[in-house]
Amino acid sequence: MADAKYDVLGIGNAIFDVLVQADDGFLSRHGMTKGGMALIDEARAAAIYKDMGPATEMSGGSGANTIVGLAGFGARTAFIGKVKNDQIGGLYTHDIRAAGVAFETRAAAAGPATGCSYILVTPDGERTMNTYLGAAQDLTPDDIDAEQVAASDYVYLEGYLWDPQSAKEAFVKAAGIAHGAGRQVALTLSDSFCVGRYRDEFLDLMRKGTVDLVFANEAELGSLYETSDFDAALKQLRADTRLGIVTRSEKGCVVASKDGVVAVPAFPIQKLVDTTGAGDLFAAGFMFGLVRNAGFEAAGRLGALAAAEVIQHIGARPQASLKELAKKNGLPV
Amino acid sequence: MADAKYDVLGIGNAIFDVLVQADDGFLSRHGMTKGGMALIDEARAAAIYKDMGPATEMSGGSGANTIVGLAGFGARTAFIGKVKNDQIGGLYTHDIRAAGVAFETRAAAAGPATGCSYILVTPDGERTMNTYLGAAQDLTPDDIDAEQVAASDYVYLEGYLWDPQSAKEAFVKAAGIAHGAGRQVALTLSDSFCVGRYRDEFLDLMRKGTVDLVFANEAELGSLYETSDFDAALKQLRADTRLGIVTRSEKGCVVASKDGVVAVPAFPIQKLVDTTGAGDLFAAGFMFGLVRNAGFEAAGRLGALAAAEVIQHIGARPQASLKELAKKNGLPV
Repeated sequence: MADAKYDVLGIGNAIFDVLVQADDGFLSRHGMTKGGMALIDEARAAAIYKDMGPATEMSGGSGANTIVGLAGFGARTAFIGKVKNDQIGGLYTHDIRAAGVAFETRAAAAGPATGCSYILVTPDGERTMNTYLGAAQDLTPDDIDAEQVAASDYVYLEGYLWDPQSAKEAFVKAAGIAHGAGRQVALTLSDSFCVGRYRDEFLDLMRKGTVDLVFANEAELGSLYETSDFDAALKQLRADTRLGIVTRSEKGCVVASKDGVVAVPAFPIQKLVDTTGAGDLFAAGFMFGLVRNAGFEAAGRLGALAAAEVIQHIGARPQASLKELAKKNGLPV
Repeated sequence: MADAKYDVLGIGNAIFDVLVQADDGFLSRHGMTKGGMALIDEARAAAIYKDMGPATEMSGGSGANTIVGLAGFGARTAFIGKVKNDQIGGLYTHDIRAAGVAFETRAAAAGPATGCSYILVTPDGERTMNTYLGAAQDLTPDDIDAEQVAASDYVYLEGYLWDPQSAKEAFVKAAGIAHGAGRQVALTLSDSFCVGRYRDEFLDLMRKGTVDLVFANEAELGSLYETSDFDAALKQLRADTRLGIVTRSEKGCVVASKDGVVAVPAFPIQKLVDTTGAGDLFAAGFMFGLVRNAGFEAAGRLGALAAAEVIQHIGARPQASLKELAKKNGLPV
């Protein structure tokens, strides 16, 4: 197996985040399910945006957030995702490259605008996402650079890719190339409603070994196995995948492998501002621990550290140097 | 004099802010003067952006920030400024309207893109701005809605309007309409380099009574009178304008009228994050005090409160309700 050029290559929906503070009344007035990610069409996007307060914008997208987090720790990273060559696509492209991530996916010249997500942050810090996929729908298997995938130790895929049909095909193609090159494939289940839409397919990916590592939060795990019994779900997860990592908000995370289960506490925070990106950044820290062969315990602590950074400000991209934070906390870098 | 429909109407360059954390080395590498606002052309904008880290975006523009702050306190406000009908112009238009500001200036259908400012925030919290005026250059006297101006108790103008030639003409037209309707005109000097460019013209505006109120910070005041002697400059300011309001960062502000000078302390903060918008939000609070006839002391405290809010997070638009903050601090709303 050739030496890898990248530690982690991520594939995900390229989404520009439009973040706004809102009260619970806004959510109910628009029929939104708090804490979830709903796919919306252009008409609904316009209706929500018209009613929203002044916003803050920044690049987002679950998988991309994780990759940017990994780059922030010092990992060598690449990302595949689809924007349009419009103004927002230009901002998106700048931001991910400026974070040190190799990003060469060709922007769409026609078709829908760069995707965006209207993210309502309620006073309790919870975020509720409404995503217009836009150009992200047009990610196809042709966008998968086989050489780049084969040259990456890990391929990290988001469950949200299962929404656009051709992106799903791109996902499967990338996983095949990675395994053909002796690499490993990670999947995040993304969202409990996403799991609800694709439960059988996700289980199939796990049981057939299309993916080797699975990230989930408690709600996603419960949705996957249709149970509220955490221990029972965890037991099934251990049977279905080589490595399962389950985040439990302020209760920390558990890392489940064939050998056993390791629990790691959450990192203390001063003030919860916005949970957007919490899971994405946890995955960044954890994957970084794997990349550095730091062991599950340290990987879990790196994940907790990155999640703690991102939930203490608005937006899903880190504002502090994760590398410096890790150093300061005596964690591997 | 008819009852006013608006408390304050602002006219300014409509600018989208692209904020990024940078170190002092970045500033010197690009030949930037720390703390200032430099006008840049498209080529330099591209060069700076290419070298910048991942950014956070939000609507900005000095005068618009002040008007949005005023709306946040509960004032009735309107804004005149020029964007293009591109994606960023759409974000800009949404944000200012969503803040409760009447904004009806027709977006440019052709010509340069919506203006933006690359704002480098250094670890000391200082901001250094590089502004590509873009569509803001095309604000003309035709964009001044005479009826709207005449129906506003105060017209608030930014000194930056002196940069684009036709905006300057729009400025003078608006001031004339306001005075014809028995209204008052406020000017912020904007930036010490801007004062350097237009010193004689600004003094002329003050001495001829084209403007009634002048906002400045210490550096701008020093540049206006080409002196580092604060007391001497303040004395000249009192002679040249009916009401002069000078901000002095952590030393608070002084309000200078023919009757005397009132000093108001700064509002205590926990942590300085980003000074972007400090002067703009001070002016918002102060103008709100005038609108409510609260007296100079209370107006100064309202200004200090709004400035303190905006410098404790990234970006020049308030993230908390200024009305609630004022209530909580026993100030008039």
